[in-house]
Amino acid sequence: MAKYVIGVDFGTLSGRAVLVETGTGKELCSSVYNYPHAVIYDALPTGEPLGADWALQHPEDYIRVLKETIPDILKKSGIDPREIIGIGTDFTACTILPVKADGTPLCLIPEFKRNPHAWVKLWKHHSAQDKANRLNEIAAQRGEPWLKNYGGKISSEWAIPKIWQILDESPEIYAAAERFIEAADWIIWQLCGKETRNSCTAGYKEIWNKDTGYPSKEFFKALDPRLENVAESKLGAVITPPGKKAGGLTAEMAKLTGLKEGTAVAIGNVDAHVCAAAVGIDGPDKMLAIMGTSTCHIMMSRLEKQVPGMCGVVADGVMPGYYGYEAGQSCVGDHFSWFINNCLPAEYYSSAKSAGKNIHKYLREKAETLKPGESGLLALDWWNGNRSVLVDVDLTGMIIGMTLQTRPEEIYRALIEATAYGTRKIVENYRENDVPIKEFYASGGISQKDPMTMQIYADVLGMPVKIAESEQGPALGSAIFAAVAAGEAAGGYDDIFKAARNMGKIRDKIFEPITENTKIYNLLYAEYEKLHDYFGRGENNVMKRLKQLR
Amino acid sequence: MAKYVIGVDFGTLSGRAVLVETGTGKELCSSVYNYPHAVIYDALPTGEPLGADWALQHPEDYIRVLKETIPDILKKSGIDPREIIGIGTDFTACTILPVKADGTPLCLIPEFKRNPHAWVKLWKHHSAQDKANRLNEIAAQRGEPWLKNYGGKISSEWAIPKIWQILDESPEIYAAAERFIEAADWIIWQLCGKETRNSCTAGYKEIWNKDTGYPSKEFFKALDPRLENVAESKLGAVITPPGKKAGGLTAEMAKLTGLKEGTAVAIGNVDAHVCAAAVGIDGPDKMLAIMGTSTCHIMMSRLEKQVPGMCGVVADGVMPGYYGYEAGQSCVGDHFSWFINNCLPAEYYSSAKSAGKNIHKYLREKAETLKPGESGLLALDWWNGNRSVLVDVDLTGMIIGMTLQTRPEEIYRALIEATAYGTRKIVENYRENDVPIKEFYASGGISQKDPMTMQIYADVLGMPVKIAESEQGPALGSAIFAAVAAGEAAGGYDDIFKAARNMGKIRDKIFEPITENTKIYNLLYAEYEKLHDYFGRGENNVMKRLKQLR
Repeated sequence: MAKYVIGVDFGTLSGRAVLVETGTGKELCSSVYNYPHAVIYDALPTGEPLGADWALQHPEDYIRVLKETIPDILKKSGIDPREIIGIGTDFTACTILPVKADGTPLCLIPEFKRNPHAWVKLWKHHSAQDKANRLNEIAAQRGEPWLKNYGGKISSEWAIPKIWQILDESPEIYAAAERFIEAADWIIWQLCGKETRNSCTAGYKEIWNKDTGYPSKEFFKALDPRLENVAESKLGAVITPPGKKAGGLTAEMAKLTGLKEGTAVAIGNVDAHVCAAAVGIDGPDKMLAIMGTSTCHIMMSRLEKQVPGMCGVVADGVMPGYYGYEAGQSCVGDHFSWFINNCLPAEYYSSAKSAGKNIHKYLREKAETLKPGESGLLALDWWNGNRSVLVDVDLTGMIIGMTLQTRPEEIYRALIEATAYGTRKIVENYRENDVPIKEFYASGGISQKDPMTMQIYADVLGMPVKIAESEQGPALGSAIFAAVAAGEAAGGYDDIFKAARNMGKIRDKIFEPITENTKIYNLLYAEYEKLHDYFGRGENNVMKRLKQLR
Repeated sequence: MAKYVIGVDFGTLSGRAVLVETGTGKELCSSVYNYPHAVIYDALPTGEPLGADWALQHPEDYIRVLKETIPDILKKSGIDPREIIGIGTDFTACTILPVKADGTPLCLIPEFKRNPHAWVKLWKHHSAQDKANRLNEIAAQRGEPWLKNYGGKISSEWAIPKIWQILDESPEIYAAAERFIEAADWIIWQLCGKETRNSCTAGYKEIWNKDTGYPSKEFFKALDPRLENVAESKLGAVITPPGKKAGGLTAEMAKLTGLKEGTAVAIGNVDAHVCAAAVGIDGPDKMLAIMGTSTCHIMMSRLEKQVPGMCGVVADGVMPGYYGYEAGQSCVGDHFSWFINNCLPAEYYSSAKSAGKNIHKYLREKAETLKPGESGLLALDWWNGNRSVLVDVDLTGMIIGMTLQTRPEEIYRALIEATAYGTRKIVENYRENDVPIKEFYASGGISQKDPMTMQIYADVLGMPVKIAESEQGPALGSAIFAAVAAGEAAGGYDDIFKAARNMGKIRDKIFEPITENTKIYNLLYAEYEKLHDYFGRGENNVMKRLKQLR
């Protein structure tokens, strides 16, 4: 008899649950709940104003996702909760909150609720940049060995700069915080009543290493003497790899969700990383690009190499037994939206309207008819800086080759091509550092909606591009991890690799590279590389000087 | 008692006559006549189809300008023709036609009228490019000394490539043509019944030099043996400097126009070059930028220097006694129009409409509020190649510094600034070659309508920018030359310099550079120069390779 699992994906603005059959990975139904507080940018719910670059969330919104979506899918599917053997979750990261020893968020305690530092700091909370800069300086000065595992730089989005900001700006919250915990692990704590820590966020966001643990006390002391014992006193020492069971669903959560008490709960996980299972990736050397507003590149390897410009290499960071690699492009869908919002002439809107087409489709149809190289344009895709492989937020966009005949669809296509060159740079950078990449997968919104872009990626990479079948990659991925947490005896799997093979899916349509296009793109990519290095590696730092002039 | 002169400006699509008082330069009235045949691109009036890049005109249209506009201004002004002491004209160049020994255009002779090569080749007739390329090769191989006087390249728009094209493609027209003559001189022939040649078109367009004459027979023979005697047999040897009288109005033309027979007719002239007189330029080292779809930079100097990248240096090329220098930017107003037509979002059009403003004004108001350097953008203004100082049609546009926050008005302003940097490059290039520039004037449509752009030019150049008072610079300039053709005894002037001082005018409002803006623009210009040389002088020929890939 068929068994089922539930995956819940906690995104930036909403949570989504999906009900999946364990044998085939078939998705029966799903349910979405938008966070009532969304992202808190300007002022706390209690009215206290926030500073520039703050981004907070309300932890009760996460609980409401469970309360609203799981009963909804039970009702819509009619599946008996006794047939649901596991629940898995994934979260944005680093999204982190200070809690008491029992897991209670400080922001829910009356004496702290008016203090912004008591709240959940969302991944895109960017006001700890000065702390990140100082941390990187000190780590470099001290020759900290782990720095190279993160492409040479710790991001202001990650845990230590955010915790340091709390200590510095609100020592009373730092003192009251008995634990700092990723929302990815906090939600597991709520589901099964037990504090756990997953190796994905610990490794990528808290600078934890499977062999050597957290950075040394001496390092933390060098940041601030009060931070000396932060790791042992306020972070967790027991780190669990993905695919393990965290515990069983509590009675309280069973009541809230309608699931059975004791249902297996998978260890916490991260939205991008669970997507690898959702496309059936079951081993090393297969890169997955999750393409949305930005792109995240996830891959496993047998090898631990220090590759310049990646976001991190973490043992058990994606699936147990392999080194997980992450790289990123900070501006992909955002780039195309910028173009459509700022550069597309009125005539195109009116023509699209007359033709009864939406503007994206209208523009894409025009761009599709162009041949590689036909526009004479070339762009550097740095409108939001460069994450990999240059790790430089101060780089900016460039486009070259315009004439009086240049049309909007040509610029649009050049911007898409630029992001493909950026991906190829990441792929080649791994290869140059002896990390093989043999297959390429894509998931996320762009992979689902934009075949032209996917063909361009195949042509630019000179590799087939396999597309996720599910539009709900993270939720499906979490469900796959749930099936492993439940185990084979209960109707799930004992092995994440087998679970991914059986439950993960790609579309039948694979984008194969077209040889004649690849030939031209090889020439264009050589030009991209030359400009990439000229503007990106210090030969002409004009982008930085222009930013300084602002 | 006041005396008057008439200036007639023959443009690309129309002719315009203006009636001017000689003492003060006051413009009494004007009249415009659109050429019935405009530009002939696709087929002759007789139906014969034309090839790609052809652009012809009908010589009868020029006569009709005289017939329509001069009687009209006589009627509107009520001025007695006896008080009108001279007529001057200016023309586009090189606009050239084959004629019989009596001046009859071959295209008006029945046996030739169906042959496209019998017609007037307009300045922008571009189908002789292969001839220009070959000519430049041969001239360079032979070390022709005059080549450096034209920035090292003869344009396909100029006379010799056009005449060679006729010989090559239609030897019967070449044989029947007893003379090849600039329209600038042909119209004078019609007015006073006498063939003359002016030093401006002869020098800039026919490679004539005051000291050495036309290129040698050996050179012409090297192009094609049949061209050996072209200069002596089909061009004129007597070349007259501007400001001289060509002759008196014929009885026939007096009847056609309503003017008095014998009225002084000035020697032919060119539209851009006559504008110097119209702003009161009366001596050396004062640059005039005529700013329209493209910009032409005119200047006189005491010195004859071979300055790289200029369009030409010609003795008596602007006014007698000085070397006339011409340089150019091939894309200025065209550049801004490209942006507005191809890059401006629908939202801006609707907001402009709601605000009751035209789109140019709306956009300019947004761009005006930006401070120098605020956008973080920098562009190379090469959307239509680079005329001066790189003389390279294969260069293309570039823009750098975009972020996801970049707004359309920021790009628009960056494109304007780029053209100002291009002008500064021309100015500095003269100075580096020991040709001083002490004052800067602007005329043409942009100078009249766009104070923001003129302030940017003043700030970028670090020089005051003086603006033409007349919106009809060429026609007023021609009228000033007419006053000199008439002479002081008749109520005009004996000296073009005095005439320009008295009759030429600038506005009271001079755009003074704002020191703090100039400081920032000096930094931005340094960045422009670096990129200008990187992309324009061979360090990275990516623009050319991208063009080849097309």
